[in-house]
Amino acid sequence: MKLNIAVLPGDGIGPEVTEQAIKVLQAIALEFDHTFTFKQAPVGAIAIDETGSPLPDTTLNLCKQSDAVLFGAIGDPKYDNNPNAKIRPEQGLLKLRKELGLFANIRPVKAYDMLLDKSPLKEENIKGTDISIYRELTGGIYFGEKKLNDTETVASDLCEYSKEEIERIAHLAFKAAQTRRKKVTLVDKANVLETSRLWRKVVKQVSEHYSDVELDFLFVDNAAMQMILNPKQFDVILTENMFGDIISDEASVIGGSIGLLASASVGDKHAMFEPIHGSYPQAKGKGIANPVASILSAAMLLDHFKLHNEANMIRLGVEKSLQLQITTPDLNSKHENITTDKVGNFIEDFI
Amino acid sequence: MKLNIAVLPGDGIGPEVTEQAIKVLQAIALEFDHTFTFKQAPVGAIAIDETGSPLPDTTLNLCKQSDAVLFGAIGDPKYDNNPNAKIRPEQGLLKLRKELGLFANIRPVKAYDMLLDKSPLKEENIKGTDISIYRELTGGIYFGEKKLNDTETVASDLCEYSKEEIERIAHLAFKAAQTRRKKVTLVDKANVLETSRLWRKVVKQVSEHYSDVELDFLFVDNAAMQMILNPKQFDVILTENMFGDIISDEASVIGGSIGLLASASVGDKHAMFEPIHGSYPQAKGKGIANPVASILSAAMLLDHFKLHNEANMIRLGVEKSLQLQITTPDLNSKHENITTDKVGNFIEDFI
Ligand SMILES: CC(C)[C@H](C(=O)O)[C@@H](O)C(=O)O
Ligand SMILES: CC(C)[C@H](C(=O)O)[C@@H](O)C(=O)O
Repeated sequence: MKLNIAVLPGDGIGPEVTEQAIKVLQAIALEFDHTFTFKQAPVGAIAIDETGSPLPDTTLNLCKQSDAVLFGAIGDPKYDNNPNAKIRPEQGLLKLRKELGLFANIRPVKAYDMLLDKSPLKEENIKGTDISIYRELTGGIYFGEKKLNDTETVASDLCEYSKEEIERIAHLAFKAAQTRRKKVTLVDKANVLETSRLWRKVVKQVSEHYSDVELDFLFVDNAAMQMILNPKQFDVILTENMFGDIISDEASVIGGSIGLLASASVGDKHAMFEPIHGSYPQAKGKGIANPVASILSAAMLLDHFKLHNEANMIRLGVEKSLQLQITTPDLNSKHENITTDKVGNFIEDFI
Repeated sequence: MKLNIAVLPGDGIGPEVTEQAIKVLQAIALEFDHTFTFKQAPVGAIAIDETGSPLPDTTLNLCKQSDAVLFGAIGDPKYDNNPNAKIRPEQGLLKLRKELGLFANIRPVKAYDMLLDKSPLKEENIKGTDISIYRELTGGIYFGEKKLNDTETVASDLCEYSKEEIERIAHLAFKAAQTRRKKVTLVDKANVLETSRLWRKVVKQVSEHYSDVELDFLFVDNAAMQMILNPKQFDVILTENMFGDIISDEASVIGGSIGLLASASVGDKHAMFEPIHGSYPQAKGKGIANPVASILSAAMLLDHFKLHNEANMIRLGVEKSLQLQITTPDLNSKHENITTDKVGNFIEDFI
């Protein structure tokens, strides 16, 4: 297969982890006889520095013309501490999601047996956890009208959802559940929000097309508790943009390191793959950034093009590296000197 | 001191736990020579059944005329499964908060040493946790305009905040921090929401009046992670209504049982005290409901009227009961037959 992949390394540790993912994808291409072409473009704080915009048109166009986007991370302390700055790196990411129509963000959360002791949660509560979170990514309060009055004393954000926006991601979630443990849990706040009541109604209707899948409802406050008390109860979680942001970051603690968690953002025409960790600027250039999340995002990229054997080969390589403790310091108390690069090389060699 | 207390037992286990709190308050009145008068009124599903309204006018008036409100819990499965019902128990609670002007919901979260093994989190991560969450309770997306179009295909909820709404709760949070470890963490999503940016701006301004208190900012997704990874970093958490709902329920798992967590909702004129657990209908009438959250809510009521010795006496009684394992089954694997009533009696006798 031929794939044109746009690479957006971004800020902080983005470039160094993305480099490992590319290495691994190239090893896969060699081994399985594919042709993957990589083209890089700037995004985030680095793009603001270079061009004044967090998402230059050339970057956006490259993404639109590619088969898939491999994304690193964005964010820089100089903007984080100043959320009132008119131009901010996050705008690049949000615009990219919207322009590419990436309405579904898929985040798998897994407790690896060999890492159970790294988790802040007790082993018996998490062993066997295997969740796939479907977060709506181009609607809701993220993209609704924002207002600030002239005296800057009243502000508002509108959370809006349409039936179509809910339907398309609901179908994806139910289809995913059919290949898994056949359960979808809708997380909402239907006892308070009108949008949540629409979500419940529409998701119920969609569920009628998937009679083999069980549908459950959970209020978001309760879900935030259940995620820690008993994460094993979840198979596929379906939720709106803001709740998905919170619940999936919360869920990321289960596995013991956010450095392991990959994500796919998909739409009708485009798809983007990124680690869920941020730019972690303090770690930049030190060789301590865990590349596994980025490498597993590359595996999700391959899955997206139905290259499942190839994707599983990457996953095997990752598991092997975890077993042999070829891991960066976040997961490794014994060997402090295993760098980002070494982990990438090990998985590359494995393939 | 003379206090008129409105008692709203509500649904499910509400009545049985509230009964224990009243018992304990009466013991305090006797011991410290106060006069507490209790008047009961219906709220929630039971009020809908009796009167058609989740908050009858007589109940609201009683609350307005009382010095404080002791609240049980509301909610019934017949409404939970039908969020589209026009009349729902939650409306009673939301209206009560709004009508009484209870703009600040205060939720203390503590890891009791004798219960560390009950927590789903590892002991070393939580030992010493002591957080006070200040959640805004009468604004934001809970009370903003809700819309549903005629074809029921587009819904929206408006999240709105004014400077005044933010200022008044911020002052309470900073004052609380002054009596504690002198740190306030504002939880928001200022990289996406206009309302969050207003929160940051206003809270920064308010912080200038409290030079002895440190102010920190955390995005809500990161806060959801940090709450599990390292809850000890928090002293006072300040946040808007919806984020507070999610973060405080998440935090409730730290202590090992949601049956321990009390809350106070205060405004300029009125104050209400309630356990944070819900109506837990499955447990109703079985004597297994943990009354400690309701009893500790009574302690918060006494603190509100500066009866700190009295409040501390209740807390001592609760700690004693935990030490001696005079606890309901949620916390007790050895003695399965200690009932709601027995726990209440023990603390009453202690006083
Ligand atoms: C950077 C931020 C805008 C973004 C979001 O909230 O969606 C991030 O937290 C994420 O989850 O990808
Ligand atoms: C019952 C519900 C409306 C309420 C809320 O969301 O505020 C509850 O979850 C709470 O936190 O007191």
